[in-house]
Amino acid sequence: MVDESKQRRGRPTANLLWDNQSSVLVGDYLFSRSFQLMVETGNLRVLDILANASATIAEGEVLQLTVAQNLSTTEDTYLKVIRGKTAALFGAACKVGGVISNAEEKIIDALASYGDALGVCFQITDDLLDYNGSSADLGKSIGDDFRERKMSLPLIKVLKKSDVTEKEFWKRTIEKGDQQDGDLDFALKLMTKHNALEDTHNDAKFWAEKAKKSISILPKSKLRNILTELPDFVVNRLS
Amino acid sequence: MVDESKQRRGRPTANLLWDNQSSVLVGDYLFSRSFQLMVETGNLRVLDILANASATIAEGEVLQLTVAQNLSTTEDTYLKVIRGKTAALFGAACKVGGVISNAEEKIIDALASYGDALGVCFQITDDLLDYNGSSADLGKSIGDDFRERKMSLPLIKVLKKSDVTEKEFWKRTIEKGDQQDGDLDFALKLMTKHNALEDTHNDAKFWAEKAKKSISILPKSKLRNILTELPDFVVNRLS
Repeated sequence: MVDESKQRRGRPTANLLWDNQSSVLVGDYLFSRSFQLMVETGNLRVLDILANASATIAEGEVLQLTVAQNLSTTEDTYLKVIRGKTAALFGAACKVGGVISNAEEKIIDALASYGDALGVCFQITDDLLDYNGSSADLGKSIGDDFRERKMSLPLIKVLKKSDVTEKEFWKRTIEKGDQQDGDLDFALKLMTKHNALEDTHNDAKFWAEKAKKSISILPKSKLRNILTELPDFVVNRLS
Repeated sequence: MVDESKQRRGRPTANLLWDNQSSVLVGDYLFSRSFQLMVETGNLRVLDILANASATIAEGEVLQLTVAQNLSTTEDTYLKVIRGKTAALFGAACKVGGVISNAEEKIIDALASYGDALGVCFQITDDLLDYNGSSADLGKSIGDDFRERKMSLPLIKVLKKSDVTEKEFWKRTIEKGDQQDGDLDFALKLMTKHNALEDTHNDAKFWAEKAKKSISILPKSKLRNILTELPDFVVNRLS
């Protein structure tokens, strides 16, 4: 509902099927039900981690809203937004795994860092795929972020390298929201010209490496191997 | 946002000041912040009570949505809706008071029953005031429930006593939502004719008495006196 997408993970959104009212209320219901399930675990530290993550995610979404359509958004701000809206969830999920298995604090911290880096890597890749993916594989429409004028990484990168004439195009389509047929194609052309998609992919790879390094202190095991492979899977879902 | 009201407690709603997006996200943020604050108390039983209340409230709101504009809604269903959306919160708040002061279980139960009855009493009065109150005192607009075609108690009561011609009026205005100038006045006239507002007020008084009786087992104290006066205050905020 918030980003007005018509598809999420390949299925029509609640908002499209029903209406705003029902979507909000059923969302609230799911929120409170998950709160109930978390309390059932009876583990206060887990509750604390999940409550903090939940507040951070909500803050990240609000931050994203405040920077929308703002062409002067920096990569730092972008990172802050996705750390909030995505990486906080990944980090909390990984950290909780350490907590409930009574791991040492340094292992719990390593897992939290792993989740954070994996989350950043995942979101950068996701934002790249919004320009670069294929609709059928991805389960969402290509160009959604462009149409919603979201300040995602490929856009921030191409903006930095755009000349005065090209900047006029971004001002019209993103800042003013005056979009016409062919604009998405032209946006993609500029991104290719300035290597914005390639640079974005490289950033995702950087975070994938960071994730892998964070768990190097974990004892060798089959599970550690799986965690080590995961960032590569996330960053390569392009092909 | 859900009931599309323009005023809440005498102030413009978030939805009117901003937009759907921001209202939903800030709502999510407040939800997660309150979850965080609840976890900070470190009391799992309190968390359990509040988590259950939170899910029940969300269910009540969804139930209200499913019975909206349905003229065959019974008083039982109405009671189920307001128990969910209002009384669950009052009940949980009162119960938590007993829990954190380490009261005996029978006292905790009495406080929960008190909150439940007070909540029902409060919501019936609120629904009455939507037809009967004065906008300035109430902090919300008169006739909101009529315009939103909500199956609240005054409407359920007047419907039961309406003749065939009068039923056509309700079908047009509530079921079909075809409302014109003067319809609210005519609705009020029918409610007065069939004593629907008076009957609703009597129901509220019944629940006020029930609330007072529930706490008769509490030890005599200044605080018990205040709790005993509260239902009368709630039910008399008409005048």
